[in-house]
Amino acid sequence: MPTYLTIDLGGTKIATGFVTLDDVGGTPVVEDLRTIPTEAARGGDDILRRLAALAADRVRERDGLAGVGIGSAGVVADGTIIAATDLIPRWTGQRVADALAEATGLGVGMVNDVVAHGLGEAHHGAGRGHACILSIGVGTGIGGALIEDGHPVTGAHAVAGHIGHIAHGLGRGVRCSCGTDCGHIEPVASGTGLAALYNLMKDDATPAVAGGKDVSELAAGGDAFAAEVIARSARALGEALGGAVNLLDPDVVVVSGSVAESGALWWDALRAGFADSAMALTRAIPLLPGELGGAAPLIGAAVAAAQVIGEHACPQHPSIASI
Amino acid sequence: MPTYLTIDLGGTKIATGFVTLDDVGGTPVVEDLRTIPTEAARGGDDILRRLAALAADRVRERDGLAGVGIGSAGVVADGTIIAATDLIPRWTGQRVADALAEATGLGVGMVNDVVAHGLGEAHHGAGRGHACILSIGVGTGIGGALIEDGHPVTGAHAVAGHIGHIAHGLGRGVRCSCGTDCGHIEPVASGTGLAALYNLMKDDATPAVAGGKDVSELAAGGDAFAAEVIARSARALGEALGGAVNLLDPDVVVVSGSVAESGALWWDALRAGFADSAMALTRAIPLLPGELGGAAPLIGAAVAAAQVIGEHACPQHPSIASI
Repeated sequence: MPTYLTIDLGGTKIATGFVTLDDVGGTPVVEDLRTIPTEAARGGDDILRRLAALAADRVRERDGLAGVGIGSAGVVADGTIIAATDLIPRWTGQRVADALAEATGLGVGMVNDVVAHGLGEAHHGAGRGHACILSIGVGTGIGGALIEDGHPVTGAHAVAGHIGHIAHGLGRGVRCSCGTDCGHIEPVASGTGLAALYNLMKDDATPAVAGGKDVSELAAGGDAFAAEVIARSARALGEALGGAVNLLDPDVVVVSGSVAESGALWWDALRAGFADSAMALTRAIPLLPGELGGAAPLIGAAVAAAQVIGEHACPQHPSIASI
Repeated sequence: MPTYLTIDLGGTKIATGFVTLDDVGGTPVVEDLRTIPTEAARGGDDILRRLAALAADRVRERDGLAGVGIGSAGVVADGTIIAATDLIPRWTGQRVADALAEATGLGVGMVNDVVAHGLGEAHHGAGRGHACILSIGVGTGIGGALIEDGHPVTGAHAVAGHIGHIAHGLGRGVRCSCGTDCGHIEPVASGTGLAALYNLMKDDATPAVAGGKDVSELAAGGDAFAAEVIARSARALGEALGGAVNLLDPDVVVVSGSVAESGALWWDALRAGFADSAMALTRAIPLLPGELGGAAPLIGAAVAAAQVIGEHACPQHPSIASI
């Protein structure tokens, strides 16, 4: 059973660990997690230097590694970051897979971090055994990935999966992280969006909240207004998801992320909105909670590495590839 | 250059013709169109009997046909209608490809009619030369198809492509053909939807319209209110399309159908809504008018036949297949 060094690189932290994939479908083993701060403000060159040093260091800890897998924030194509938000300055253009291959001497599989999450859930989590999985992560933002026959669908410009940026009327007039206010689902259904919706819907006498967690905690404490906001937000997301499922027709939808862990109130409203918006032919498609939690991106990065090294190795560049 | 008998079966009429595909990318030749009424109310068994007789008849007109291609209303899988609306009673369950193969002695390629339209535009129309095409038809209803590497993406239950049934706030409270009123784009952006939106937005003194064509004609005649309705409807569709493109990331979007032929007012609003909703990374994806008009489904049916007969022939069932 091969073991990979895996990396999950986000705007706040860089998590690493050793993931051993069980070929016969057992649960992967994730070991020896070590996390460092991304220190994003220091910019892409500095991050990549520290990342390569960390990878070289970690590879020395373990004999016989089969390769390196990384899921990174930003739009990933051919092992390079082709676009990134201002959250990580000068991350765009960084040839991450090259740098990791050079630092470790191992083959590298690289995907976007949301795609890594989806790959993990598709192969070893809630999507196991299905051919076509729509994975959606509802946390600070909303991300998505479509996994078909085990491989991510990346689209024509490596951008596919941005399910937070599909239309929903509840988002109209609320600024989305992508810049529009014409009505996307993310600004009213992510964790940040839950807080934004609460602050928009509340009366002047009610204090504003700072984040989605505050809304969840108020609702858990019996606050009826916070519960109403959560139900409204989750129902809207369910309606948007129903529409996406009418378009994509996956076998299952896997829903993960901190907001998705907020309880039955959120899930019931999500499922009610989905049932209203999905057609008769798609209504039975199950919405399943993710099973791997925070380990999903690391496990998915290992899957990406295994796919590149096992199936997609390029004779000209045996140690560098991305899927 | 192979010639196929091709069939486009809708709720109103069954069109047939001979399509000759040019292997080197030239424009297909469509000849000898003949159309009969579907007489849908007579039900699936009767339709299939008349369809098979028509096909047998037409095959005798032309020597050396390479096969039969059909695009049919309804959800198509393995040459069978697995679901259909009440517009064609008892169409569900009809083994159409089997019946056509038996009647003609030829190999049969069968897809949904909206998929046939998309296949035609992808291979020989506005999508020519691109790997990933989102095709959308805006007529009485709104249908769509996703064509990847030349083949239709049909999803887990052969339902993929139902882009009329994605969320948009303008549709909230307006009954969609799928039954929901939680807010789909079709009931306010199809031809029927354009009329519904006009009738919803008008004041009591303004006479109601019966169809989208009435709204287009009023606008063409200088009616400012009709023009405003068209702009509102097309902008909403553009916003919904922008969201779908953020999710799917195709190379191009091909927009066809009677409403898409209604002029610059509609297209300008469509493009403005799209530009507002698409992310920076997808905004440059072109929205292109379809090039094949009403011939698209016949040409796409020929492509389906060519794909089945050339690439997907099943050794156990050499004359019957669908893609």
